[in-house]
Amino acid sequence: MSDLIDVRVLSPITTKGFRKPADLAALGYAGLTVSHSQIDSGPGSIESEFEIAMSVPGTIEKAIEAEKEGAHAIIIDCMGDPGLRAVREVVSIPVLGPAETAMHVAAMLGHRFSVITVLRRLRAQFENEAAVYGLSTKMASVRHVDIPVLELEDDLPHTQARLVEQAVIAVEQDGAEAVIFGCTGLLGCAAAVRQGLLAKGIDIPVVDPIPTAVSVAAALARVGLSQSKLTYPMPPKKELVGYGFTLPTAIAAE
Amino acid sequence: MSDLIDVRVLSPITTKGFRKPADLAALGYAGLTVSHSQIDSGPGSIESEFEIAMSVPGTIEKAIEAEKEGAHAIIIDCMGDPGLRAVREVVSIPVLGPAETAMHVAAMLGHRFSVITVLRRLRAQFENEAAVYGLSTKMASVRHVDIPVLELEDDLPHTQARLVEQAVIAVEQDGAEAVIFGCTGLLGCAAAVRQGLLAKGIDIPVVDPIPTAVSVAAALARVGLSQSKLTYPMPPKKELVGYGFTLPTAIAAE
Amino acid sequence: MSDLIDVRVLSPITTKGFRKPADLAALGYAGLTVSHSQIDSGPGSIESEFEIAMSVPGTIEKAIEAEKEGAHAIIIDCMGDPGLRAVREVVSIPVLGPAETAMHVAAMLGHRFSVITVLRRLRAQFENEAAVYGLSTKMASVRHVDIPVLELEDDLPHTQARLVEQAVIAVEQDGAEAVIFGCTGLLGCAAAVRQGLLAKGIDIPVVDPIPTAVSVAAALARVGLSQSKLTYPMPPKKELVGYGFTLPTAIAAE
Amino acid sequence: MSDLIDVRVLSPITTKGFRKPADLAALGYAGLTVSHSQIDSGPGSIESEFEIAMSVPGTIEKAIEAEKEGAHAIIIDCMGDPGLRAVREVVSIPVLGPAETAMHVAAMLGHRFSVITVLRRLRAQFENEAAVYGLSTKMASVRHVDIPVLELEDDLPHTQARLVEQAVIAVEQDGAEAVIFGCTGLLGCAAAVRQGLLAKGIDIPVVDPIPTAVSVAAALARVGLSQSKLTYPMPPKKELVGYGFTLPTAIAAE
Amino acid sequence: MSDLIDVRVLSPITTKGFRKPADLAALGYAGLTVSHSQIDSGPGSIESEFEIAMSVPGTIEKAIEAEKEGAHAIIIDCMGDPGLRAVREVVSIPVLGPAETAMHVAAMLGHRFSVITVLRRLRAQFENEAAVYGLSTKMASVRHVDIPVLELEDDLPHTQARLVEQAVIAVEQDGAEAVIFGCTGLLGCAAAVRQGLLAKGIDIPVVDPIPTAVSVAAALARVGLSQSKLTYPMPPKKELVGYGFTLPTAIAAE
Amino acid sequence: MSDLIDVRVLSPITTKGFRKPADLAALGYAGLTVSHSQIDSGPGSIESEFEIAMSVPGTIEKAIEAEKEGAHAIIIDCMGDPGLRAVREVVSIPVLGPAETAMHVAAMLGHRFSVITVLRRLRAQFENEAAVYGLSTKMASVRHVDIPVLELEDDLPHTQARLVEQAVIAVEQDGAEAVIFGCTGLLGCAAAVRQGLLAKGIDIPVVDPIPTAVSVAAALARVGLSQSKLTYPMPPKKELVGYGFTLPTAIAAE
Repeated sequence: MSDLIDVRVLSPITTKGFRKPADLAALGYAGLTVSHSQIDSGPGSIESEFEIAMSVPGTIEKAIEAEKEGAHAIIIDCMGDPGLRAVREVVSIPVLGPAETAMHVAAMLGHRFSVITVLRRLRAQFENEAAVYGLSTKMASVRHVDIPVLELEDDLPHTQARLVEQAVIAVEQDGAEAVIFGCTGLLGCAAAVRQGLLAKGIDIPVVDPIPTAVSVAAALARVGLSQSKLTYPMPPKKELVGYGFTLPTAIAAE
Repeated sequence: MSDLIDVRVLSPITTKGFRKPADLAALGYAGLTVSHSQIDSGPGSIESEFEIAMSVPGTIEKAIEAEKEGAHAIIIDCMGDPGLRAVREVVSIPVLGPAETAMHVAAMLGHRFSVITVLRRLRAQFENEAAVYGLSTKMASVRHVDIPVLELEDDLPHTQARLVEQAVIAVEQDGAEAVIFGCTGLLGCAAAVRQGLLAKGIDIPVVDPIPTAVSVAAALARVGLSQSKLTYPMPPKKELVGYGFTLPTAIAAE
Repeated sequence: MSDLIDVRVLSPITTKGFRKPADLAALGYAGLTVSHSQIDSGPGSIESEFEIAMSVPGTIEKAIEAEKEGAHAIIIDCMGDPGLRAVREVVSIPVLGPAETAMHVAAMLGHRFSVITVLRRLRAQFENEAAVYGLSTKMASVRHVDIPVLELEDDLPHTQARLVEQAVIAVEQDGAEAVIFGCTGLLGCAAAVRQGLLAKGIDIPVVDPIPTAVSVAAALARVGLSQSKLTYPMPPKKELVGYGFTLPTAIAAE
Repeated sequence: MSDLIDVRVLSPITTKGFRKPADLAALGYAGLTVSHSQIDSGPGSIESEFEIAMSVPGTIEKAIEAEKEGAHAIIIDCMGDPGLRAVREVVSIPVLGPAETAMHVAAMLGHRFSVITVLRRLRAQFENEAAVYGLSTKMASVRHVDIPVLELEDDLPHTQARLVEQAVIAVEQDGAEAVIFGCTGLLGCAAAVRQGLLAKGIDIPVVDPIPTAVSVAAALARVGLSQSKLTYPMPPKKELVGYGFTLPTAIAAE
Repeated sequence: MSDLIDVRVLSPITTKGFRKPADLAALGYAGLTVSHSQIDSGPGSIESEFEIAMSVPGTIEKAIEAEKEGAHAIIIDCMGDPGLRAVREVVSIPVLGPAETAMHVAAMLGHRFSVITVLRRLRAQFENEAAVYGLSTKMASVRHVDIPVLELEDDLPHTQARLVEQAVIAVEQDGAEAVIFGCTGLLGCAAAVRQGLLAKGIDIPVVDPIPTAVSVAAALARVGLSQSKLTYPMPPKKELVGYGFTLPTAIAAE
Repeated sequence: MSDLIDVRVLSPITTKGFRKPADLAALGYAGLTVSHSQIDSGPGSIESEFEIAMSVPGTIEKAIEAEKEGAHAIIIDCMGDPGLRAVREVVSIPVLGPAETAMHVAAMLGHRFSVITVLRRLRAQFENEAAVYGLSTKMASVRHVDIPVLELEDDLPHTQARLVEQAVIAVEQDGAEAVIFGCTGLLGCAAAVRQGLLAKGIDIPVVDPIPTAVSVAAALARVGLSQSKLTYPMPPKKELVGYGFTLPTAIAAE
């Protein structure tokens, strides 16, 4: 493996400019670069199971492209981890979901964690993710700030204040001892939220999923680990009607 | 509700003729008809997470259509339950997955159940489904006959013999006390498999997922039950790039 | 199987007139009739483990009788599911408990469900049932209206208002996304409670256990499914002292 | 509390002479006596859910009598723990089930335990008990010697050899690190089975449920502990048709 | 086994006089004596994982000594159960942790239990203990009185009032139906706390861990049960640098 | 944070030369150095709960020293994760256990993982770790090569062949889809074992715990994450008898 690791952040939404290149570049460090791509077809943002579903075909297409372009690992830029298992089948480089990674990291750092997300409607989605990831017993609760994804940056101090408020409730009422942002649109808010919590005497990790997943993905790539091909074997070679892309021959199994 | 219930079986694959209308019609009875539709774009059959993912947009489109056409309930015709949660968001009639339904029914009929599916690679998928459906403790094992979906009918007696063989192992080694077919392509094999097991002194339910899900869906429609709109609220109104269909105004939330 | 399915509702209490024939008849539809019987010996109503226990011998007797009379399925008319496993041993037609069935149905319709029952003392009973049925992770909570079974109909609007009130708490505090009535004496209250919840902006399924179990039992009978005889084998032939009935020869195992 | 504790072993079967007074007396020691009673109506032995159910009314009657006669604790003499929760409602002295007690004790002594019972058909019963007792994760397996209860003493060396054989399989294949006898009819076999296991180099506890439950019940009585009256409140005062006994006034709640 | 059982209470703290001999002697009864010893090196009290860790080497040393002195069972006198698994490896007499024992006993007596401990910081410790003991589903909550161990006796009525207050919250908000003291420094407070709860109409067991563990340990010793040597085999013979004691030859495995 | 991260590997055993500096240095890469220290008092190797316990005081001492010397993260070099929770209390830099880290990473990479350790006796230890880490449902099994720690390198090809053999069994019989080495003494064997598995057609991740934990620890340090001080608060200021070190004033809480 080259000395330089490139982690691709793949945004599964079509809204242009939502993810700023400078924010991602800032996540790099010695030996690590962070590149970016975005789907061409799909939802403007993701706040439902419907939108998760509609984002996946484009995500698969762009993930195949990322591997072809030389990325060493892929992060799917949404806390619904859309298409995580499908993408792992079609590439050989490690693919990490920010939700899965953040939950495992939070489970190591604190006894239980809560997810602070955007909307009430995402609670079942996060509890289902925790069930599949095997972490239900470590998740204290899912709380929300009640601000849609595309409005999170409209009044950032308000958004951060709401995050602190819900994190405090998660700690005091639900037994959380660490918190995770439940939307990758909150990228960059961790320092402010951690300060807000410290100001109230609460000294807990605030896990910002994209920086965490990028850093862990690079760590796994460094030691040569990738997803199990027993769990995620290549899909069988087969006709696929009505999509503008096909699986590379090298990828499709016999 | 009218006296006549129509349950729509929606096949999320593009292979023509795979699902025979007569086989579905035979599932009807007093007060129940079974209609059928099929996606236009997507995989020829489903044997991977990739194919599940690619089948979902078309399934959502056809589910909206089914409700518009007056169906009283929808069954997604694949044991991966593709798009189950997304479809439940975009329609108001009850939507049942054959895997979810068969697992709940089997859990009522026997102490533990095993799934007998087509390929080894689907084991994680079924265990993930059980985790999300809350039934992990009732699932004894996932076993497979090692025959691809589109070859199941090539030598039906062989397929049925393999099903019996794997069911016996599930009972004797894994503690299964009921079995579920892990592929809707096995529709119609239950009687033969049950006879094969009885011949070996094993008197357990053999759950054929499509007939079971159709009948249970009709039962729920009869008593006026449908999915929770707190769990499955309508998706937010939002631009969706690159798909040939949009959510009906009546469905998309404000 | 004949075109007409008869589901027997078996009330395991001795209070006459508690279960009204018209209410049960109204649960029938095309191809489905609902018959009724009641135990001769046992408690007037069931609100304790003691009363569950005392209701079971009579329930077993009446279940054997129901099969002899040609019923195609049996519902035990109490949310304690008294004698469910014993009855399944002594008959071959499917036997469903309203609690087990309602919990499985609610688990399919919403992410988590709460049970709204009559008295505080039944909480452990419902949590034990969920543990045995494998559904502990889907049960959000057990709440109660604090009205004894035989007084539920004394002031029906008050009972229904209390049900709505407790369901709202279950949704807002416990994370319920569906509710189940925790007493079959509440038969018929679902429409009013659902309306009450909709009026507060809560659009969730309200599962009325007896109609649901009757309809699902008919569905299973239609597709030829019954309990596993590996889980519920016939009891061994053996002397039974002091009871006025014996197992039919055809039923008792060698 | 008097210096002398009397623990009542209550046999929920009608076969006379099955439980030998001398065997129980031998369980006493300094400060502990063991008394015995037996139900008048019910099954000759218990090997099914049906027989468990039919044994409970008589067990409740005899438990009330035991408390009236001055017993300090009650053990229900069957590994199905028949009527355990009902009996705990109608008396105030501690009531222990041998299965519940043996499972908790075995869970303390070894990492996981297996139950070695009489017949295959009891597997679900023991797994359900473990689920309700909260010990599913500590139970490695349920194995059986395939000898009916009333024939266990016909060839005791054979029975003991079968117990050793199944315990070895439980250790080697299922991960058991302690074993429990799954039938109280095996009382007195622990020393021989433990020797048989030691001879094969397996040094694990062999829990004989009746001696263990008697000794633990005395221990709890000594420190003044009994079942929670929040979990097991007195049954409500109510008519009970067709049974030859009623709840003492002092016991029935208002 | 002699008629007289001696249970050794081993205090893993260095504060002299904290454990009063008279309090332990009072736990004896017919056939049971309670002896005491204390570590020489280690923390003054235990309120952290650090202090648990530092108490263990001394505890192991004193446990070996207790067996040599003829004790029939050992109780480690701290609710962190410090060194429980290590001590079980180096002796053959039964070793019980008061936390493990109290949790199993409380799980038998009531549907769920809460632990009322001294400080907030111990919550994770108790939840980890419950996970390892297999009892997570029976633990309703961990609550605390916010009084350090060495100050519990400074104002005993205040301490007891706080215990009652937290127990009431555990019952009303968390679903507890039994409570356990979460610090062995609370020895002797059970009667007062139970009275305080009864005065509020709450009739639940209050488990005082040391008396309970002593009595249960004697019970197990009586019936010849000790820890599994498959779970707790003797440590391998090996150099141990820098400790003033070695494992007896008879104990160290080849 | 400086551009250069130093991860300290802390070996909790006293055997000199067991951990080779060159092997650790080889784990560094751009921006990462790996330093090493070792305890002065404690066991020569760790193969029991007793040895885990005896290694912890020295480990705590050396961890405090590592932080003082400027390390950015600490890895405790043993799969028993000895003292993990205690060490997290006394330092503020992130502390990772190789077992905890490897299990979380393996759970992300494959559906279920097995641990291949040295001796049968460690099975309970690993299952207890998984329970505390919240990962029981992701662990397929614990298997062992039956070679003591200090003999692993005596015949390395034999050791690696045994690892392959046990991994194959874990995959084929237990459902493992990834494997973890269950002893840090196996450092460096991953490539050979992965090749051995590939040669048998099994393409799964082989997680070598020390390289993985070092790389993940650096990743977390990079993004500023450390353990929760709500879960791992500083120990209270208190006398500690008989140990040659004290907590730094800055660390001990008031």
